[in-house]
Amino acid sequence: MPATLVGLIVALVATLAGSNFKGVNPVILVTNVAAILIVCVGALGATMASFELKATTGVFKAILKATLGKDPKPGIETINTLVDFARKARSEGLLALESEMAQLDDPFMKRGLQLAIDGSDPDAVAQVMKTDIKAMKVRHKVAADWCQAYGIFAPTFGIIGAVIGLIATLGKLDKPEQLGHGIAGAFVATFLGVFLANGVMLPLANRMKRLSAQEAQAREMVMEGVLAIQGGQNPRVIEETLMSYLSPSEAGTMRENA
Amino acid sequence: MPATLVGLIVALVATLAGSNFKGVNPVILVTNVAAILIVCVGALGATMASFELKATTGVFKAILKATLGKDPKPGIETINTLVDFARKARSEGLLALESEMAQLDDPFMKRGLQLAIDGSDPDAVAQVMKTDIKAMKVRHKVAADWCQAYGIFAPTFGIIGAVIGLIATLGKLDKPEQLGHGIAGAFVATFLGVFLANGVMLPLANRMKRLSAQEAQAREMVMEGVLAIQGGQNPRVIEETLMSYLSPSEAGTMRENA
Amino acid sequence: MPATLVGLIVALVATLAGSNFKGVNPVILVTNVAAILIVCVGALGATMASFELKATTGVFKAILKATLGKDPKPGIETINTLVDFARKARSEGLLALESEMAQLDDPFMKRGLQLAIDGSDPDAVAQVMKTDIKAMKVRHKVAADWCQAYGIFAPTFGIIGAVIGLIATLGKLDKPEQLGHGIAGAFVATFLGVFLANGVMLPLANRMKRLSAQEAQAREMVMEGVLAIQGGQNPRVIEETLMSYLSPSEAGTMRENA
Amino acid sequence: MPATLVGLIVALVATLAGSNFKGVNPVILVTNVAAILIVCVGALGATMASFELKATTGVFKAILKATLGKDPKPGIETINTLVDFARKARSEGLLALESEMAQLDDPFMKRGLQLAIDGSDPDAVAQVMKTDIKAMKVRHKVAADWCQAYGIFAPTFGIIGAVIGLIATLGKLDKPEQLGHGIAGAFVATFLGVFLANGVMLPLANRMKRLSAQEAQAREMVMEGVLAIQGGQNPRVIEETLMSYLSPSEAGTMRENA
Amino acid sequence: MPATLVGLIVALVATLAGSNFKGVNPVILVTNVAAILIVCVGALGATMASFELKATTGVFKAILKATLGKDPKPGIETINTLVDFARKARSEGLLALESEMAQLDDPFMKRGLQLAIDGSDPDAVAQVMKTDIKAMKVRHKVAADWCQAYGIFAPTFGIIGAVIGLIATLGKLDKPEQLGHGIAGAFVATFLGVFLANGVMLPLANRMKRLSAQEAQAREMVMEGVLAIQGGQNPRVIEETLMSYLSPSEAGTMRENA
Repeated sequence: MPATLVGLIVALVATLAGSNFKGVNPVILVTNVAAILIVCVGALGATMASFELKATTGVFKAILKATLGKDPKPGIETINTLVDFARKARSEGLLALESEMAQLDDPFMKRGLQLAIDGSDPDAVAQVMKTDIKAMKVRHKVAADWCQAYGIFAPTFGIIGAVIGLIATLGKLDKPEQLGHGIAGAFVATFLGVFLANGVMLPLANRMKRLSAQEAQAREMVMEGVLAIQGGQNPRVIEETLMSYLSPSEAGTMRENA
Repeated sequence: MPATLVGLIVALVATLAGSNFKGVNPVILVTNVAAILIVCVGALGATMASFELKATTGVFKAILKATLGKDPKPGIETINTLVDFARKARSEGLLALESEMAQLDDPFMKRGLQLAIDGSDPDAVAQVMKTDIKAMKVRHKVAADWCQAYGIFAPTFGIIGAVIGLIATLGKLDKPEQLGHGIAGAFVATFLGVFLANGVMLPLANRMKRLSAQEAQAREMVMEGVLAIQGGQNPRVIEETLMSYLSPSEAGTMRENA
Repeated sequence: MPATLVGLIVALVATLAGSNFKGVNPVILVTNVAAILIVCVGALGATMASFELKATTGVFKAILKATLGKDPKPGIETINTLVDFARKARSEGLLALESEMAQLDDPFMKRGLQLAIDGSDPDAVAQVMKTDIKAMKVRHKVAADWCQAYGIFAPTFGIIGAVIGLIATLGKLDKPEQLGHGIAGAFVATFLGVFLANGVMLPLANRMKRLSAQEAQAREMVMEGVLAIQGGQNPRVIEETLMSYLSPSEAGTMRENA
Repeated sequence: MPATLVGLIVALVATLAGSNFKGVNPVILVTNVAAILIVCVGALGATMASFELKATTGVFKAILKATLGKDPKPGIETINTLVDFARKARSEGLLALESEMAQLDDPFMKRGLQLAIDGSDPDAVAQVMKTDIKAMKVRHKVAADWCQAYGIFAPTFGIIGAVIGLIATLGKLDKPEQLGHGIAGAFVATFLGVFLANGVMLPLANRMKRLSAQEAQAREMVMEGVLAIQGGQNPRVIEETLMSYLSPSEAGTMRENA
Repeated sequence: MPATLVGLIVALVATLAGSNFKGVNPVILVTNVAAILIVCVGALGATMASFELKATTGVFKAILKATLGKDPKPGIETINTLVDFARKARSEGLLALESEMAQLDDPFMKRGLQLAIDGSDPDAVAQVMKTDIKAMKVRHKVAADWCQAYGIFAPTFGIIGAVIGLIATLGKLDKPEQLGHGIAGAFVATFLGVFLANGVMLPLANRMKRLSAQEAQAREMVMEGVLAIQGGQNPRVIEETLMSYLSPSEAGTMRENA
């Protein structure tokens, strides 16, 4: 369920509706060219400078995934698959899993099992799978860090925009009828910076970090399962151990169905 | 004792009473529609976007538990149970504990002891119990993180509301009789954001984190006890070790009763 | 030497004296009922809600200890005791220490030595002593965390008080003769919040953390000594190792006296 | 691709263009002598005082590298080299790599392989290579810390400059025609401090940290390869393990070319 | 080279010169008795209360060392000494180093080698040296923490001073000719607090932390050398390992001279 997309829309609509209530036309909050240049483009430049080019070009894909992507596969299904494999491996030997490889659509589990089937050393299998998880976390971290950096820079460029707006206005203290509008204009930059950070970029960064942690945990469960299968452990014990990764309600569902 | 509920009420009543003293009708602080939209709903959207949907739907249960839930069972009772089991296991063997399993109402201790009775490898028992504790911490962390995220977003949406209010007001510098009321209205958003964070959400997040740490510590004590029972350690040494988990006053009470 | 008590008094007196210099009667800074309600009581509520009740009721004892308590026993004395015990244990055996137990007034050292004398496994002695130190740190941390939480909440309730004060004042822009006094009153809440945090609660939290670290280090030294005695190490080597815990000046004093 | 240089220019141009839009001549933002003295030179002094002299004199080289330097060598190339060496070492023995040393232009890989060829103990090779990576990180950290310290000091000196500017202006409240210009001048220091931090120094510090992490990761991959070659591991397994360091797209490219 | 002293002077002179440019007599910034009482003395009280008395009385010595002290001995010299000792120990035995002890002026290296010569267990030597490094870090940390605490308290007492100044001024809104001067006076406290923190105390704290890390690293190098000598390692390998602690330029110099 796209909680992130819904949340971002709620934050935007609530803010603009509140603005309308106050009698401030929402359009003027998002169409001030100077504010957009300083806050949106300025903070983009600072963020871009903080990373290698690939991070900036790749962040849009990550934002799409965070807002529109599907949730990871439920853990119960994965546990069932692993326990089935454990039973088969125990009764017919590890090589019997070879025939299952073709239907398997989780590349991470596939890679680990294939290494086990090929007779690699258990330590080597663990090493490859751990490096894989660590490398995945590093890749995910780039996009989350990018959004967070933008979310940190945006309010500071909002201050820069407000300060410049105030400097522009304070030069005209002798025309008080323009003063109010000038200060109001200066505050639009503040609004843009704070909203871009807290209504868009920081929620995205939070969500990306959570998604990454969840995918890493799912893979750790798979790794623990694959290593247990290779070690020829009791399928019942494997199931018991892997179920610790489930939430109590999921575990309850699973026990009932068992 | 529901310290959290009492504390939240104290913070709210003290703030509204102080407001009344200043001559500000508390009602206007919490009924400004624009401020509520921007601060409460806007920050809710940003928080919701930071998490998977389940975190948002599940947070109310966690808030209820933090405000109304009972304190964890005292450690002395748990230690006595474990030491009794240790004595029985030492004199009659681990299998003798099978008969105790039915009355045991702590599912965590039950699971660990059952694995030990079933003859699982000590390392496997430790592994399952550790994974269990770790998974519990991860689950608890979601709700605490949710409240903390709300507590971080709320003041920033308070700033957004204030800035929008100021923009609305500054356009009317030529009507000074409205100016004061306009700025006062803008500050209501600031009030809401800061109070929602520091008077509600951050205390809740703090409390949830402490509760989680206490439950984890209680389970670590149980784990240490179960593993010591399985290892056939001296019940006297087990008691001595587990008592380190008690506060000095609890340990004193226990020694007196011994 | 009660550096904490002296420091707190210095901070308070300097602030009130400076206030007097500016022509602000210090009495008005600390007798504003609305500010006291919002800042002192409001922040107390938020802090109370962050912890279990026992943390709030027990914090006063910890504050008294931090402000009035004696400094921990100097390390040199403890080292001398341990080295004496090591010599005796080496020449007459561990059991010979039994007779020393009665005069020993450090319950932590006593507990460790008693376990060693009783013939416990060295790993078990280390385990009990480590758990003890860890549990002590956890207990100390509660009071320090409580003061720090108060110190973080206080300035935010100071902002709440100031905002409410400004709302009260801005409704009377048409009575400029009251404006100045109104804003001044609003700032009293800011003063209270910032001073309560930085002049009282955060210094207390810092001090509690340092006291806890010092006590933990003292106990680690005792633990290292007890384990070395149990291991039958050379008293000279034990002395050399334990002296690493002393400051260079203390170690110099000790070497001169040797 | 010099993303950092482009990003810094984008931030600067967008800010100055936005300033122009507001009617503030960009020249006055960067030519206020008092603001430059207080903010740029004052923060430079504070940063310089935070480090040994070598850190300050060496930071310009690091800034040039971060803005103009080339990206690290792609990982695929390095993996291919290592796998070729592994094949040769396996069929002809480690000594056969001696002849390859001359063409090798990566001093880190060269040093590790030479130690392996010379018959050093595998633990010693690992130790030297790890110390090397750790020392490189420490060296890189100095420049990143320097830029970050400047980025933290600059806005605070911006506040100092603004406060001094306000003090200068407020002494002339009786000449309202100068008031606006005075306050505007005071805000130039704020602008300089915030921009110098967020538009220059903090992006540079971020970039330096990322470059360092990337170089460290590249070296860790080389270390893992060298140790595997010395251990006589299967070249196929080495390739598989090292590929975990690649991004999925790079790994895809590599698999296609295989 | 006293980079810290130079940096502190640069920050002070640049700030006062910039102040002069603005037309603010630098003398009034540093001679406001109320501001000095509240900011300098108030923050001193809060800092003092945060530590045991010895930390406050000992901090001046640490400040002198950070501003005037000499840089640590270059690493090359230490490596040469250690490698010479390693050669001698290898050809003539560890006891042959006894005669070198008298000229050795590094007490840390002396202590480690003496233990090795006396035939202590290698683990015991490592233990003593590690405890020594750890204890040194703890001692250094006190002074750095003290300066940092002052640097954190100072701006908050600057806010307290400004708020009190504003309260004093706002009571006289009816005498506008005094208003400007009153607000200007209030801001002097802000200036003092921010400058004392960012122009003095935080740079000192940074510098102390770096000095401590450098001394710790130098000692770790010595420890690694001493343990390698005791272990009878090849002097050439010892040199190679220890050179990883040098910067590339130092290592280059060393290789050229070899």
